[in-house]
Amino acid sequence: MDRRTPIVTLTTDFGTREGYVGAMKGVMLGINPNLTLVDITHEVQVFDVMAAAFVMQQSLQYFQPGTVHLVVVDPGVGSTRRAVALRHNDHYFVGPDNGLFALLLETETPDQMVELSVNEEQPLSFTFHGRDLFAPAAARLASGTPLEDLGTPASHLEPLHWALPIDDQEGIRGWVVYVDHFGNCITNISRTLFEERSEGREVTGYAGSGIIHNIHHTYSDVPVGETLMLFGSGNLLEVAVNQGNAATLLHIQRGTPINIVFGHPIG
Amino acid sequence: MDRRTPIVTLTTDFGTREGYVGAMKGVMLGINPNLTLVDITHEVQVFDVMAAAFVMQQSLQYFQPGTVHLVVVDPGVGSTRRAVALRHNDHYFVGPDNGLFALLLETETPDQMVELSVNEEQPLSFTFHGRDLFAPAAARLASGTPLEDLGTPASHLEPLHWALPIDDQEGIRGWVVYVDHFGNCITNISRTLFEERSEGREVTGYAGSGIIHNIHHTYSDVPVGETLMLFGSGNLLEVAVNQGNAATLLHIQRGTPINIVFGHPIG
Amino acid sequence: MDRRTPIVTLTTDFGTREGYVGAMKGVMLGINPNLTLVDITHEVQVFDVMAAAFVMQQSLQYFQPGTVHLVVVDPGVGSTRRAVALRHNDHYFVGPDNGLFALLLETETPDQMVELSVNEEQPLSFTFHGRDLFAPAAARLASGTPLEDLGTPASHLEPLHWALPIDDQEGIRGWVVYVDHFGNCITNISRTLFEERSEGREVTGYAGSGIIHNIHHTYSDVPVGETLMLFGSGNLLEVAVNQGNAATLLHIQRGTPINIVFGHPIG
Repeated sequence: MDRRTPIVTLTTDFGTREGYVGAMKGVMLGINPNLTLVDITHEVQVFDVMAAAFVMQQSLQYFQPGTVHLVVVDPGVGSTRRAVALRHNDHYFVGPDNGLFALLLETETPDQMVELSVNEEQPLSFTFHGRDLFAPAAARLASGTPLEDLGTPASHLEPLHWALPIDDQEGIRGWVVYVDHFGNCITNISRTLFEERSEGREVTGYAGSGIIHNIHHTYSDVPVGETLMLFGSGNLLEVAVNQGNAATLLHIQRGTPINIVFGHPIG
Repeated sequence: MDRRTPIVTLTTDFGTREGYVGAMKGVMLGINPNLTLVDITHEVQVFDVMAAAFVMQQSLQYFQPGTVHLVVVDPGVGSTRRAVALRHNDHYFVGPDNGLFALLLETETPDQMVELSVNEEQPLSFTFHGRDLFAPAAARLASGTPLEDLGTPASHLEPLHWALPIDDQEGIRGWVVYVDHFGNCITNISRTLFEERSEGREVTGYAGSGIIHNIHHTYSDVPVGETLMLFGSGNLLEVAVNQGNAATLLHIQRGTPINIVFGHPIG
Repeated sequence: MDRRTPIVTLTTDFGTREGYVGAMKGVMLGINPNLTLVDITHEVQVFDVMAAAFVMQQSLQYFQPGTVHLVVVDPGVGSTRRAVALRHNDHYFVGPDNGLFALLLETETPDQMVELSVNEEQPLSFTFHGRDLFAPAAARLASGTPLEDLGTPASHLEPLHWALPIDDQEGIRGWVVYVDHFGNCITNISRTLFEERSEGREVTGYAGSGIIHNIHHTYSDVPVGETLMLFGSGNLLEVAVNQGNAATLLHIQRGTPINIVFGHPIG
């Protein structure tokens, strides 16, 4: 923990219509009024652990070392799933151990981890651990409390893995893992896998009702209203429409398959 | 007012699509750039004073003493309703006196109250008191201006009361006062009333198309997809579905009645 | 740039469901952890440059001199549109030069302007200039970097103009430029034009299915549920319903024409 202003990011599926997020912020600012709280989103699809990991992956790397990431997407609240705090690559994470962190960090063994201790003197609600357990831990961590003081040592995260695309010499079969606000359809096909397999050949993508040729660099490489494939800001293959909504136009939703077929060598 | 970073919470029905909230924040940060501004929500159902009080009740108690709560849900803007600032239990509140504060504080006589004075030198828009009257008052209060300097002494809040459930020896009849983002249906039946009346007997709840037995502690006490009744984080009886949406499943909406019937003594 | 806490406002069409805004905030807080970041809105209609200008116009003037306004509504990302930072009337603006700034500032020649330089050492994504180009420039500007250090001098903004109403001796024909969260229908008819033309005569407005007489000061000047015309907080003529939704009631949407007809002199 350096001496810079401590930052806590918040990612939940609580929505912004109720007082749940406000309660968590009140708890944290009560522990340290100098915290900088940054909402990533509170609109994760309810209980969608994979979507939460995906959303966090878009912003995580842009925060400074020492940032604490509070993530509460918790279908198992009140069950036996563990409550954890951990450090990995100089970032801190607090939340339920339901697979999200293993997915996000791409490891089941973070640099350091504790199972959060429940304070016996304070009542813990059965339904709102975000406010009563996770928020206080995040605020204390951001304020300089050592990780080891927050609970008992633990070492192994609950595993969860991205579903990976299938690939061979002829092509790659993946699917759409996220449709963003603009209607861009983000797939699980990474630039690395694509380049390994394509070997400079022509490429055609089939997704929903769309048949799309070649890879472009940016939306405006094609005329307004036309479809294209490109690698988005997270280096995942994406189907998009220049200034349009690809999901609507091509009838694509989360889970829709995409088939990439390689053709003749280019040039 | 202590020396800690001053906090102002914001609760409105302005939505987040327009510049109205930004204008209020600009005004407040112009008065004191060191304010910490915390959005509770700006998505209160338009003009729904009761919903605003309910949402605030979920988070209010988690903020530190001295916090200023700016609440602008104001169907009567431009009418003769008073604009007030008040202190109660070491929290400060600023907004229109339209019943919300009496409801929220469960009293019509706060510890101290003023009717806000209109600054004769500055123009007050007829339609946006949030920006021109309430935001400046909240920022000044959070920055150390004594409450009494903001207006003329007042003593009695406009009354408004929660609709209370009906109860007798056989059961309790209440209704759903709020459906949250998860589809949990929160009723106006408090844990205190319930325990007073149930006297350890078996209990069945009828709400929408649901018939639900017993009270559980937490969502995961029942299998995924099953309905249950429990006391939520605000100690109000709630109808829920483990990892599901009770409102959709049981055809419940705000205002739907719930009947609690007591049976044989347990055990 | 004075010594006060530096403020950066954010206005985008990114929505709040994904990690895009979080990434921009991470970048900015990495450059200066003491920034105060104020969201104006992230729910501008996708690619709607005019709506973004309208929303900013509602809040801009309420921020203190020296505030930096980061505006990323960027249908032309990756095209040849310029990336700019500029100063005008002691406010700073950073974003794509796509007409928005000329519209907002009502001039094509700001007090000072640069075309942002791309840092050759750091990779610039083809699709997310908000994070890789505009956010760093805004954070540096708010932290005291002189405008001229951010790029090469430029002088002329891309022009874009509000569509103006048509007016003559008999009346004014304008249209609805924005329907707000409350259903209030804001037109492009300014108070100045209206007063110049009406000369104290009776007035009738025709908009959607509504025929509305006279101008009122505030919503509660008419009974609950009745339509009225008034000048809103931005001094534009607005069609509203006291405690109701004018857009729904009168079948008005963005683009609907409004005809103002003058009658006999009043009194």
